[in-house]
Amino acid sequence: MTGQDDSTIIVMRRDATAANIDHIVERLRDIGAEAHVSQGQLRTVIGAVGDRAVIQQLPWEAFPGVERVVPILKPYRFVSRDFQAADSVVDVGGVPVGGGALVVIAGPCAVESRDQLFATATAVQQAGARILRGDAFKPRTSPYAFQGLGEKGLQLLAEAREETGMPFVAEVLDTRDIELVSSYADLIRIGARNMANFTLLAEVGRQPKPVMLKRGFTATIEEWLNAAEYIYKEGNHQVILCERGIRTFEPQTRNTLDISAVPVVKGLSHLPILVDPSHSGGRRALVPSLTRAAVAAGADGVMVDVHPSPETAQVDGGQALHPTEFATLMDEVRAVAKAIGRKA
Amino acid sequence: MTGQDDSTIIVMRRDATAANIDHIVERLRDIGAEAHVSQGQLRTVIGAVGDRAVIQQLPWEAFPGVERVVPILKPYRFVSRDFQAADSVVDVGGVPVGGGALVVIAGPCAVESRDQLFATATAVQQAGARILRGDAFKPRTSPYAFQGLGEKGLQLLAEAREETGMPFVAEVLDTRDIELVSSYADLIRIGARNMANFTLLAEVGRQPKPVMLKRGFTATIEEWLNAAEYIYKEGNHQVILCERGIRTFEPQTRNTLDISAVPVVKGLSHLPILVDPSHSGGRRALVPSLTRAAVAAGADGVMVDVHPSPETAQVDGGQALHPTEFATLMDEVRAVAKAIGRKA
Amino acid sequence: MTGQDDSTIIVMRRDATAANIDHIVERLRDIGAEAHVSQGQLRTVIGAVGDRAVIQQLPWEAFPGVERVVPILKPYRFVSRDFQAADSVVDVGGVPVGGGALVVIAGPCAVESRDQLFATATAVQQAGARILRGDAFKPRTSPYAFQGLGEKGLQLLAEAREETGMPFVAEVLDTRDIELVSSYADLIRIGARNMANFTLLAEVGRQPKPVMLKRGFTATIEEWLNAAEYIYKEGNHQVILCERGIRTFEPQTRNTLDISAVPVVKGLSHLPILVDPSHSGGRRALVPSLTRAAVAAGADGVMVDVHPSPETAQVDGGQALHPTEFATLMDEVRAVAKAIGRKA
Amino acid sequence: MTGQDDSTIIVMRRDATAANIDHIVERLRDIGAEAHVSQGQLRTVIGAVGDRAVIQQLPWEAFPGVERVVPILKPYRFVSRDFQAADSVVDVGGVPVGGGALVVIAGPCAVESRDQLFATATAVQQAGARILRGDAFKPRTSPYAFQGLGEKGLQLLAEAREETGMPFVAEVLDTRDIELVSSYADLIRIGARNMANFTLLAEVGRQPKPVMLKRGFTATIEEWLNAAEYIYKEGNHQVILCERGIRTFEPQTRNTLDISAVPVVKGLSHLPILVDPSHSGGRRALVPSLTRAAVAAGADGVMVDVHPSPETAQVDGGQALHPTEFATLMDEVRAVAKAIGRKA
Repeated sequence: MTGQDDSTIIVMRRDATAANIDHIVERLRDIGAEAHVSQGQLRTVIGAVGDRAVIQQLPWEAFPGVERVVPILKPYRFVSRDFQAADSVVDVGGVPVGGGALVVIAGPCAVESRDQLFATATAVQQAGARILRGDAFKPRTSPYAFQGLGEKGLQLLAEAREETGMPFVAEVLDTRDIELVSSYADLIRIGARNMANFTLLAEVGRQPKPVMLKRGFTATIEEWLNAAEYIYKEGNHQVILCERGIRTFEPQTRNTLDISAVPVVKGLSHLPILVDPSHSGGRRALVPSLTRAAVAAGADGVMVDVHPSPETAQVDGGQALHPTEFATLMDEVRAVAKAIGRKA
Repeated sequence: MTGQDDSTIIVMRRDATAANIDHIVERLRDIGAEAHVSQGQLRTVIGAVGDRAVIQQLPWEAFPGVERVVPILKPYRFVSRDFQAADSVVDVGGVPVGGGALVVIAGPCAVESRDQLFATATAVQQAGARILRGDAFKPRTSPYAFQGLGEKGLQLLAEAREETGMPFVAEVLDTRDIELVSSYADLIRIGARNMANFTLLAEVGRQPKPVMLKRGFTATIEEWLNAAEYIYKEGNHQVILCERGIRTFEPQTRNTLDISAVPVVKGLSHLPILVDPSHSGGRRALVPSLTRAAVAAGADGVMVDVHPSPETAQVDGGQALHPTEFATLMDEVRAVAKAIGRKA
Repeated sequence: MTGQDDSTIIVMRRDATAANIDHIVERLRDIGAEAHVSQGQLRTVIGAVGDRAVIQQLPWEAFPGVERVVPILKPYRFVSRDFQAADSVVDVGGVPVGGGALVVIAGPCAVESRDQLFATATAVQQAGARILRGDAFKPRTSPYAFQGLGEKGLQLLAEAREETGMPFVAEVLDTRDIELVSSYADLIRIGARNMANFTLLAEVGRQPKPVMLKRGFTATIEEWLNAAEYIYKEGNHQVILCERGIRTFEPQTRNTLDISAVPVVKGLSHLPILVDPSHSGGRRALVPSLTRAAVAAGADGVMVDVHPSPETAQVDGGQALHPTEFATLMDEVRAVAKAIGRKA
Repeated sequence: MTGQDDSTIIVMRRDATAANIDHIVERLRDIGAEAHVSQGQLRTVIGAVGDRAVIQQLPWEAFPGVERVVPILKPYRFVSRDFQAADSVVDVGGVPVGGGALVVIAGPCAVESRDQLFATATAVQQAGARILRGDAFKPRTSPYAFQGLGEKGLQLLAEAREETGMPFVAEVLDTRDIELVSSYADLIRIGARNMANFTLLAEVGRQPKPVMLKRGFTATIEEWLNAAEYIYKEGNHQVILCERGIRTFEPQTRNTLDISAVPVVKGLSHLPILVDPSHSGGRRALVPSLTRAAVAAGADGVMVDVHPSPETAQVDGGQALHPTEFATLMDEVRAVAKAIGRKA
């Protein structure tokens, strides 16, 4: 086989006929691809070489005699290390994410009031956080739970930015709110539940603010990178990934933090990757351990829930750190970062 | 303890202090709930009895000394058997779903052309399908894949309905398309990827057409019923559930059809439940076996992908049945349905 | 490429050097395999063709420049449809398992007493069961739970066989008990927890009684068939597979019955496959639905827990059917079996 | 409710009758337990207080009218922090595991030859490892793969101990080999596949050497601690836990390292916990990142595969580090350990 864009391996069933094989070879030639047939004792294998976008479009599994199809290249392009070898650095309101330094994002899960927000923002900034978190729109499992303050919450976040100098990240849940959130926030977040909401992804790819894409707790790393591709190909190259745990059979934690995703993503993609230790474990007691692990694993930063009074939190109080606990954690973060040659 | 709305069990840590316990008891009384304290040798347990919506709002895990919280009632209400004991029957353009009869929905995954759609619609109707499927908007994992015909597809579906008399179901992906899809379709589908898109759920709950809610391949049954509650509580009580497989470690199938969901949902909820054997397995060869299993398990119907020429399908051709295969399957469906005392 | 035993695809990293590629090609030639190099724009792919056992032995992932390795053939041989196209039929004390007829195995989870066993055995036989189940050795999650009657239990089972004429199946947990269990039972069962206990598998492959191999709730279908290969290759070809649910994130059921495993295994292997609806769901209320689904899906039989007094059962009482419930279920099984052209 | 050994919550179905409730209350009194009935509007809840071993023995789910059962205490006792608050320290041939210091275990996955073993042992010792790993019996997925050197391998390990002064750990697969392995090794390992092999667990609990219990890739943390209880209750209190990844839907890694297990186990149990970064990820490139994460998370040590020539390794070569890579990793381990106040 000689060099072309891509190759895909089509494995035939044992009982595939010569006509089945010829049919596929012909169809490949129709679309301008080369077909390399290799007949083994038990299986015939067809190597299809040509334009990936064209080859992957056809439903080869539906052709008579086909057992399975093995693509050689990943379905995403622009977010891969093949496309760009050097690490991307994303500018979030003046704070670089990715590259050498480690970034800590902190704040309340949801904005509840000016007092709650300002108390938290001031405290996390003094402890060393660089970006503020706080949501105005909340996707809640139960329809009877608090759903966020809406635009009022965004206004409070903008005031807290004024006060502390920290840029902020906020989630967008619906295509109709993108313009609003984008007009306030420095970094737009796509939450885990919306990771495969392709319409939303494409649209945040067409607005100017950087985007943080959380991994669906359902999603493979490949699907996550595909979702990032949806944003990237629309022209918005400022994409930050954030691992927040996947769903497994283990009930002790809300989700299982997939710490391996950090080195795996670093190998496959040039995008920065953060870790959210608060939403993955879902329990305050686990946050310090998971945060240190994320930093040591090589994540470009962490995002941590902090609340001045977790007992009264309207969302996810069980996982929020007290500001004093957060300050202690920041000392640990700095120590571990330094140990692996990073600055926090 | 005497009768009230609900009870929640708060289990204290072994090292919880008397002050920790008193603090929770006081907080419960503040919100008008009763607290029943039971001190064991190793753990103190507090039974909180009162208004569920109020009790479940507080982040008890965040209170000092709390080990875990065990809610006794499910977080959903209206879709539960507790709320309505009798099976719901949903009217889809004149075809009842739920109750005694078994309904078969069939058609192409995506509408590609008039010829493709009409050939399929005519064939599945003759074989015994009662409702047509066909999508105009497709959520695709890869941003480079076919995304659907849009409104043109809906127009073709309406024409096929005219021609065959079959009502049709189509997916809606975005809040901005609800009005459009609702104006054409007899049944609106929320796909697996959008099961936790709560904004979309609430809005389809405020339009008049019945809604089919597919289970997220990520979702527990409880989360699925919560999502149905989001639709139901907005006033739209015509909700149909559709199981389509969950994500597991098994790579032989695209997803693992959770056949147990059929009897489990029948026990927990009064809503009709269908099964999609095509998207769960993802392979044509598995569809007959899974379809028969769904019917035998007691599902209220199945939804099957059919394509006149799977090899040329632009979406999921690998799982679509040929019309002749579908006709054979319908014979099997009728036989199994009859065996368990249902009419198909 | 010309015909040889097998082929394996070695995909090189983008930054693989010519020396990396040459090194692998050389190593392949050293072991007598052919190497077919295909250079694409982004990846070089090496097709290795030769003796599978030799090629799969080498750790290709450890070679410099290798990204991943894609084997074309499955690692098992004798249990595959490639090796034997016709269905295997296993003789269990005169009762054929596999082939056209459907077999129902029933009895208590554990043998507790003569009365309990005989009452159950008589009842299930009258209802139509052909093989008796009942264990003398129980693997219990908790070290404080009832562990079985041991040899006394096997003696009671043998007496029940005498009384009813039904052969029986019993589990073996330890290599040291094989001879004992084999001397009494007609069918030896390897439980889910021991599916990957390769020493035990090899040894039951060297004794004369047929073996039922339950799927580990951890195991992929490929691993399960590999485990069957362990038994088969030792000379014991009387292997019966039994699906009993896999571990997923869904908490409503003890395990998720993987109903798709029935058609998948039928495609890959010639061995008979049964389903255990009792241990998969773990709840009595689900057993009828799952049993009917298994039969409709095409399983060669089912194995059902029955207990004359579930409330007093020492093991898994929550999932056992009363004998009268079992009799009703047998009527349903016969009806569904007949609907799909099988005799029960 | 007044203080007794334990309490269990029995939640009744909505349609449970007064007779159903009385029946349970009576049965509880029969076994000497107290019953506290709490009638809510939608559910009646029975709190059962008494001897746990007695209460948990009865199959409450099998009683008419029962919806579900919620145990308040964990099923294990001796390995819990409730039983012993202080961390256990296990002595492995003079090397303490647990407590303040961090231990690194390293060596080849399988012993293949004297040269391979000695080269590795010398290298890892010089780099700072304190315990040698190397197996003589290997559980292999494929029956056609290398199964280990048997006693000859143990002899070589003993010689390597003589040479380097490092104690060694080796796996035992079968009850019949315990005496043999125990006579050579300083630490006996129960592999992930045997974590639920209760017979094996009980027997290693009756021999004098300390035991490392790997987590089954199938197992919840609670099941893992139950398995440790099996060993502990037989009198062997020298138990070390080792996390090695769980099975999830993510295919990029062989298993998903459950890093959260480190802080979760530290909260629930007094036993030392190690992490195996080699077998969890299954890929050499991930080992440094996962090792650092494990140390930062607070694990008591790590166990790493090292091979002088991974390309020729007969088992798991794809994940083994070269000795020079291991030496670099040891520098990182020491730096991270120091950052969190531990000595490596």
